[in-house]
Amino acid sequence: MQDIQDVIESRYERLAAGDVAGMQACYAPKVVQFSLAPPLGALMDGRDPGPLNAWLATFEAPPKRTVTQLEITTSGDVAFATSIDSMTATPKGGDSPFTLWYRMTVGLSRVDGQWLIVHEHASVPFYMDGSFRAAVDLEP
Amino acid sequence: MQDIQDVIESRYERLAAGDVAGMQACYAPKVVQFSLAPPLGALMDGRDPGPLNAWLATFEAPPKRTVTQLEITTSGDVAFATSIDSMTATPKGGDSPFTLWYRMTVGLSRVDGQWLIVHEHASVPFYMDGSFRAAVDLEP
Repeated sequence: MQDIQDVIESRYERLAAGDVAGMQACYAPKVVQFSLAPPLGALMDGRDPGPLNAWLATFEAPPKRTVTQLEITTSGDVAFATSIDSMTATPKGGDSPFTLWYRMTVGLSRVDGQWLIVHEHASVPFYMDGSFRAAVDLEP
Repeated sequence: MQDIQDVIESRYERLAAGDVAGMQACYAPKVVQFSLAPPLGALMDGRDPGPLNAWLATFEAPPKRTVTQLEITTSGDVAFATSIDSMTATPKGGDSPFTLWYRMTVGLSRVDGQWLIVHEHASVPFYMDGSFRAAVDLEP
């Protein structure tokens, strides 16, 4: 499973290093993407650096992300992995640095011997107290 | 893949019929659960009807859930599935009926020939407009 773990962790390390092409090499050409932000779901072009570069441009430096509580389930050429991840970043425009903890599920397929991410689901829960606030203040 | 789809859909059908034991038969004894509500993550006892019955007791009738845009990826004895799901329910206490659309990722393992759910990740995104509101008003 080490090769699967390597893909999961290196996509964050490459992002933190500003290596967009290296990060995208961890992804399949088409990725079913359930992101922290709307819409509900999207079919992401895993080879188009445009959206990623636009997102990175909203921060002072590339966000640092960590993977914790990683659990990988795999058989044959398919795997999925669950983890509790964090993102630390400083938005441009004077906002303070923040750290956000979120849940991550990753789906992977092995193609020509190489594990690639074909699905990502990142989220925080929301408070069911009538406020419908996203629970961005949780920590593991 | 029909047997995997059957598990995914029948857990909702059994819930709608109030068949808690039948629904739980779709799950492994231990489930990594990333729910719509806090906490971030939990290891759910897939055989304990207590939490499910307590949740059902907050509604006038068992919620009706649907699975749409289902995509299953499988190899050997592991599968994961993505979908855009809905839940329609009427809370007890006079609140109006609601329909909530959310993203769902399900992870499954085949044990003794039977597919069981070992991971569920249900979520809505949140608005990145500074409000941190959960996006409970989205539709596919």
